[in-house]
Amino acid sequence: MLFKVEMTVKLPPDMPKETADAIKLREKAYSQELQSRGKWRHIWRVAGSYANVSIFDVDSNAELHDILFALPLYPYMEIRVDALCRHPSSIRDDDK
Amino acid sequence: MLFKVEMTVKLPPDMPKETADAIKLREKAYSQELQSRGKWRHIWRVAGSYANVSIFDVDSNAELHDILFALPLYPYMEIRVDALCRHPSSIRDDDK
Amino acid sequence: MLFKVEMTVKLPPDMPKETADAIKLREKAYSQELQSRGKWRHIWRVAGSYANVSIFDVDSNAELHDILFALPLYPYMEIRVDALCRHPSSIRDDDK
Amino acid sequence: MLFKVEMTVKLPPDMPKETADAIKLREKAYSQELQSRGKWRHIWRVAGSYANVSIFDVDSNAELHDILFALPLYPYMEIRVDALCRHPSSIRDDDK
Amino acid sequence: MLFKVEMTVKLPPDMPKETADAIKLREKAYSQELQSRGKWRHIWRVAGSYANVSIFDVDSNAELHDILFALPLYPYMEIRVDALCRHPSSIRDDDK
Amino acid sequence: MLFKVEMTVKLPPDMPKETADAIKLREKAYSQELQSRGKWRHIWRVAGSYANVSIFDVDSNAELHDILFALPLYPYMEIRVDALCRHPSSIRDDDK
Amino acid sequence: MLFKVEMTVKLPPDMPKETADAIKLREKAYSQELQSRGKWRHIWRVAGSYANVSIFDVDSNAELHDILFALPLYPYMEIRVDALCRHPSSIRDDDK
Amino acid sequence: MLFKVEMTVKLPPDMPKETADAIKLREKAYSQELQSRGKWRHIWRVAGSYANVSIFDVDSNAELHDILFALPLYPYMEIRVDALCRHPSSIRDDDK
Amino acid sequence: MLFKVEMTVKLPPDMPKETADAIKLREKAYSQELQSRGKWRHIWRVAGSYANVSIFDVDSNAELHDILFALPLYPYMEIRVDALCRHPSSIRDDDK
Amino acid sequence: MLFKVEMTVKLPPDMPKETADAIKLREKAYSQELQSRGKWRHIWRVAGSYANVSIFDVDSNAELHDILFALPLYPYMEIRVDALCRHPSSIRDDDK
Repeated sequence: MLFKVEMTVKLPPDMPKETADAIKLREKAYSQELQSRGKWRHIWRVAGSYANVSIFDVDSNAELHDILFALPLYPYMEIRVDALCRHPSSIRDDDK
Repeated sequence: MLFKVEMTVKLPPDMPKETADAIKLREKAYSQELQSRGKWRHIWRVAGSYANVSIFDVDSNAELHDILFALPLYPYMEIRVDALCRHPSSIRDDDK
Repeated sequence: MLFKVEMTVKLPPDMPKETADAIKLREKAYSQELQSRGKWRHIWRVAGSYANVSIFDVDSNAELHDILFALPLYPYMEIRVDALCRHPSSIRDDDK
Repeated sequence: MLFKVEMTVKLPPDMPKETADAIKLREKAYSQELQSRGKWRHIWRVAGSYANVSIFDVDSNAELHDILFALPLYPYMEIRVDALCRHPSSIRDDDK
Repeated sequence: MLFKVEMTVKLPPDMPKETADAIKLREKAYSQELQSRGKWRHIWRVAGSYANVSIFDVDSNAELHDILFALPLYPYMEIRVDALCRHPSSIRDDDK
Repeated sequence: MLFKVEMTVKLPPDMPKETADAIKLREKAYSQELQSRGKWRHIWRVAGSYANVSIFDVDSNAELHDILFALPLYPYMEIRVDALCRHPSSIRDDDK
Repeated sequence: MLFKVEMTVKLPPDMPKETADAIKLREKAYSQELQSRGKWRHIWRVAGSYANVSIFDVDSNAELHDILFALPLYPYMEIRVDALCRHPSSIRDDDK
Repeated sequence: MLFKVEMTVKLPPDMPKETADAIKLREKAYSQELQSRGKWRHIWRVAGSYANVSIFDVDSNAELHDILFALPLYPYMEIRVDALCRHPSSIRDDDK
Repeated sequence: MLFKVEMTVKLPPDMPKETADAIKLREKAYSQELQSRGKWRHIWRVAGSYANVSIFDVDSNAELHDILFALPLYPYMEIRVDALCRHPSSIRDDDK
Repeated sequence: MLFKVEMTVKLPPDMPKETADAIKLREKAYSQELQSRGKWRHIWRVAGSYANVSIFDVDSNAELHDILFALPLYPYMEIRVDALCRHPSSIRDDDK
């Protein structure tokens, strides 16, 4: 079951660079692990913004919430969720 | 080069059903032809809305505009475009 | 899997009363059938508005979309969907 | 008398974890006590957000205000209230 | 129990003057009857707008909805409802 | 001459409780004195919010400004002002 | 007593040119008569818009409402009103 | 050439009173000097707000920018600019 | 003196194609004549929208208004105007 | 390939003047180097705001993102990006 999730990151300007770097490193590892497992299907950078557009493939709303809530950058994010489903014009088998 | 495009369709309530059906049929054929050529990478329905989230892969802003402007449903759509680029955390080779 | 759906109805002011009444009758029957089957868990009127707040219990985003798209009043509605999940403080077993 | 209340929590990023945990513990106890008494009918988590959708059953606007104002997390919440009433299509006796 | 209700009227520009006048006449009679009964406590015009600010005193959300839904101008109104309660600083006994 | 004024209070979360209590005490005294003099006609709490809806009866815009600017909580308020006048349907002599 | 009023005109695209011209002619005469009497102190065009920024000098909110409600273009206008008063830095005697 | 400029001041709540007073004093002197020179034609207080509505008469966009950028309160202001021009209905020779 | 102007066109869906084509032809000629004279410095299409971003170089706000008001598509446009001036970092002599 | 980028700068009010000046100096040098290379085609100041309107000419979305992300003022900016393309009415060869 697919969801589009848009995440915008707003780090406090006075966060020490090492703290920020450490969080981003954990964020990257966490994201790549979920991508490897097929849960985090796509992630793209929005040009010009510290933001991404992502597609998640999960079994339930609860699984989506648990994944997002555990993001290392979660406390600094604004998140928007839209539930997706297969489009009748789609020719791509796994876009459902 | 990737773009996220969100399209929301608002058909006039008094449009005859045959007219609407004919436009939708042309829209579907047009979309599937572009999907086959790899220009329209993904299309998903937004649950509960007459709307879609799409990913386009084009050579330029101009090509994107020409594709969208020629949509049979274009006169009845609200369209939002966001330029995307590769995310540094992405592990998927073609999400760029 | 639960979703909160908020529906606001805007009938064209010049729709004949019989047409409107017929649509509303079909809407009511459709809603009550889905309530009986447990798919449409709750429906409340928003005081002062031609609008409702509803809770749906469905197996997937796709099932939610199909249910909403088939609403007799769908062409006249603005719809907002929010995916819900169990709250850690909830003491009510089926609010999940 | 029913009200839908949507609460979004925004804790200051520099609040010590122990302080936050203590407030959340009191919030949970407070919420569960009100659920047990039937005042706080439903509480659901919004997927992806530190937010909930709740249904309250109170005797008056004043009682609703007193309950919300006493929430341990109240100083950190944005709250939206909508008065609800029975929907003519509802088949569920206590959704009034 | 008090509610602030703000009503903005938007009549279709092509409604015949006689039709509009007849509706307004029924609206006025309806409003004054509810004022006489103490249900519609206050009504003020917003300077420069075809809009009013009103205070209703009702027994329940349902009664408020029934009153508003029966307004002759209801199909042409945008309505916003806010639940009120006694302010701790108020010195006016009946503002509760 | 009447004005509806809506005030929303946002105290800084780190303001010491004694400071906040002292300001609120002065605010209450100030409000009650103006109510006694008939300048501050009504004040209601908005259910669920640290906000009020008030009706002022003043001789001029300038008098309204001076009253609001001197509120002890003014530096922490968002304020919205709407000029009111008598509604042609009103049956209450002093609602003008 | 001064008010800033911003008026934006939206004529229906299918209004016959003669009808529109006749209304505009009456609007101009009405505005100039009020300017001559000192009630309508200033009127400026907003560059690029069918809109104006105006300053009114009236004795009460009621007088302002009556003036605006009688504008020939009133049914086609969106109007925003802000109550003004003398600025402590002003050196112009009549800007009060 | 005329511009309407709306300025809203938001001083940090923890700015020492002496600092604030000193800035306001410089702001007043600066404003009055520009009023004397005819550059700052009008300034009015918005009732209930720490905000003003002003009319500037400048030779170019650049001159307007330089004047606003040099305001002592500029770092604490939100500013909105609208280009004005003579209204065809105006009877006041210098409102151009 | 430079202005950025953003124009969005919304033609009524039932406008006959010949009428629309005729207006667009006049719009194009009008735009190109102003570009030739140096008044309309730049015009770009916004990808995916029936909208443009333009830079005008005019002697006054009044000249800008007259140019925009005379656009053949003006009755069908939403227009936003921002006054520009030279940026201190610009190295391009005529961007002033 | 052209993009319109609007940047608004919000420096923290308590940033030391020397820090701010140093960042602005680097920003200016960075901007001018990109202008010299033809990547940053235009930059204009928005009158009255600490903001600019810019036109970039880049080979891809990714190049645009890299340029913007490296702006010395980036952490203090709000940025809006719109993809542009040649307008069919344009007579200027390089506005594409």
